[in-house]
Amino acid sequence: MMIHAYRSCFRNLRISLARNYASSSKLVDVSRDDKTGVSIISMSRAPVNGLNRELLVELERSLKEAQDERRRGVVLTSSLSNVFSGGLDIMEMFKKDAESMSKFWSALQDLYLTLYGLSVPIAAAINGSSPAGGCFLAMCCEYRVFVDGKHTIGLNETNLGIVAPKWFQNVMIATIGHRNAELALLRGTLFSPQEALRIGLVDELATDKADAISKCENYIASFARIPGTGRYLTKLGVRQELIQWMHDNREVDVNSFVTFAQTPEVQKNLELYVKSLKKR
Amino acid sequence: MMIHAYRSCFRNLRISLARNYASSSKLVDVSRDDKTGVSIISMSRAPVNGLNRELLVELERSLKEAQDERRRGVVLTSSLSNVFSGGLDIMEMFKKDAESMSKFWSALQDLYLTLYGLSVPIAAAINGSSPAGGCFLAMCCEYRVFVDGKHTIGLNETNLGIVAPKWFQNVMIATIGHRNAELALLRGTLFSPQEALRIGLVDELATDKADAISKCENYIASFARIPGTGRYLTKLGVRQELIQWMHDNREVDVNSFVTFAQTPEVQKNLELYVKSLKKR
Amino acid sequence: MMIHAYRSCFRNLRISLARNYASSSKLVDVSRDDKTGVSIISMSRAPVNGLNRELLVELERSLKEAQDERRRGVVLTSSLSNVFSGGLDIMEMFKKDAESMSKFWSALQDLYLTLYGLSVPIAAAINGSSPAGGCFLAMCCEYRVFVDGKHTIGLNETNLGIVAPKWFQNVMIATIGHRNAELALLRGTLFSPQEALRIGLVDELATDKADAISKCENYIASFARIPGTGRYLTKLGVRQELIQWMHDNREVDVNSFVTFAQTPEVQKNLELYVKSLKKR
Repeated sequence: MMIHAYRSCFRNLRISLARNYASSSKLVDVSRDDKTGVSIISMSRAPVNGLNRELLVELERSLKEAQDERRRGVVLTSSLSNVFSGGLDIMEMFKKDAESMSKFWSALQDLYLTLYGLSVPIAAAINGSSPAGGCFLAMCCEYRVFVDGKHTIGLNETNLGIVAPKWFQNVMIATIGHRNAELALLRGTLFSPQEALRIGLVDELATDKADAISKCENYIASFARIPGTGRYLTKLGVRQELIQWMHDNREVDVNSFVTFAQTPEVQKNLELYVKSLKKR
Repeated sequence: MMIHAYRSCFRNLRISLARNYASSSKLVDVSRDDKTGVSIISMSRAPVNGLNRELLVELERSLKEAQDERRRGVVLTSSLSNVFSGGLDIMEMFKKDAESMSKFWSALQDLYLTLYGLSVPIAAAINGSSPAGGCFLAMCCEYRVFVDGKHTIGLNETNLGIVAPKWFQNVMIATIGHRNAELALLRGTLFSPQEALRIGLVDELATDKADAISKCENYIASFARIPGTGRYLTKLGVRQELIQWMHDNREVDVNSFVTFAQTPEVQKNLELYVKSLKKR
Repeated sequence: MMIHAYRSCFRNLRISLARNYASSSKLVDVSRDDKTGVSIISMSRAPVNGLNRELLVELERSLKEAQDERRRGVVLTSSLSNVFSGGLDIMEMFKKDAESMSKFWSALQDLYLTLYGLSVPIAAAINGSSPAGGCFLAMCCEYRVFVDGKHTIGLNETNLGIVAPKWFQNVMIATIGHRNAELALLRGTLFSPQEALRIGLVDELATDKADAISKCENYIASFARIPGTGRYLTKLGVRQELIQWMHDNREVDVNSFVTFAQTPEVQKNLELYVKSLKKR
């Protein structure tokens, strides 16, 4: 019994250590290039960079760090070979209690406010699939480079029987215009690289991840001679309405998410989706 | 004298009967295709589908019915051979009293709220001219297919010395962007099918009415696998600001319409227009 | 010593006279074509039509005059050969006291409200460089014709370490859309004529100034048959939100300008810029 307790304790300890290790250095990998002054922030939560609460918190922490360190800029990318981010981790809303879901959603709001209003230039090197929340993260950056090939990008929430939150929708409207956004949101369109370029959802295509990162670094380098404060205030000006919307609606938004996610219809759709994932 | 009175009375009766008949079954013709689940709602008020109060009410009733019956979708079109809709019936604002004009305008607002926020997919098969209010109805749908040829579409109110209401303007801005909408509204531009396609005022061209309806049905069918509730909430999200604007401004909007329509300058412009119509 | 004082006084007098002369008849030159009914308003403050308070006031006065005289329309252009306007006169914010800066900024707001809401058609014949405030004036018109060649146009404020005011930003967003405006504002992009045309920042190119004015006159003539009141109310409708914003934010906007302009960082950036101008 003592031995068993010891083992159990030891095992918990190992898990706990593993988790700490992961949260400090593996959910998000940060690489600083001191020649260019750019930080490369890579999401590293296999298998698909599902945005669970831990990853959201870790990502926001890394962004704030780059901001506090006054880096020249940030490239947001993924350590995984075929996916930028698969979006919000469905398991954070499937059969969860209200408090847990509230905390998850608040972390998403925090990340949004930090990412969308980041003081330093930030570009997304989209090196794989980027549905739903993955597309949203990319749209919150200032510039998007998509690796050409078979992967797609878009807010495809309607396909899962759920709804892209109002602020996801608004960021898409700001990116590709009202008409294109409406149609894309209703259809849950996942755009090919060529289509995404044509519609303005991404700014450039790249041949591979290295090329995408290099093009993002070029974007950041284009601001080398532009004073940072004026640039930052300009960004806040252009993005002011959407940022203010979130400050004005945080609580309402959390509650409407939790209420919606708990409806039987949504839970049923999520269940079907989770089952389909397991079959793959 | 008696005979004359009798004849006059009889003639009025016939007109009245014709009107009742029209209002109950002919102002709007609804055809349900049970294979596709689509309702085809056709405006049928000769000669130009002028949007008088009766037609507005009847149209809204048909849309609500399709919504309540949870149809797969709706195609909005016209039973007339050369016109989708000629827009608001000028006779509803020419030499009318304030109460009558208020009721007319309220009916237009009601139709807008139902049409712009319709829960099921709706596409316009624009099979003829679509000026002013006709263009507005089409823009409130989710998708527009225009029969190629000599007909035109646009908010041409300034040409008549009147003003497209703020909400007509806003729906146009949402459809083709602020810059294009401003120029089109100032000029009262009526776009050819090719121009309308290029500027995004319509989404596809068709060879004839049947082709237009078929393309609208394809649009509706593209949502076959998309759960309805999430899709509907997404639509309400994207259209929220404009819908909210109307809820917040119904009374002000009615009053400003009535006040504007009653100004001598507008009445004079309407009179010139009515005379020019009679000369044709 | 007496002689020196006398000379100094005489020199000041000459400068003062020159200034008065300029402010009454030469800062802005107005030419009325009675055949077309168009007023051509030309900014004439050498060397670069720097928008100091005097020029702002004079320009607004000329616009109001054209409006009161119910001219067919206005062409805004420059009397200088290589510049439309170099934008706000930096000397109005460099080492100035708060009161002086407030008056300057209020004059800019007044001009904006008159120009952006002008009741008669107005087009800009951009016959030279048009950075910052110069670009802003052009964007406030209804139509822009840019003389093709080596000159550029854009809101390049971030390059000077300053910030295009929120309302400059909003007018740019209304002109070229949110995404294009954000990127242009962050980068402080100065667009070539071809690029400006492609992105929609101008509507036509011209071979020279006479051609630009002629194309602006064609724009104005296109409204010959459109009643003025409905056209004007339509314009106010489309531009309502931005005009209302200014009415709601005049004081806050003045204060935030003065506060920002007085920060050491901005004053330092302005000093560097002023020095670089003197070296040319």
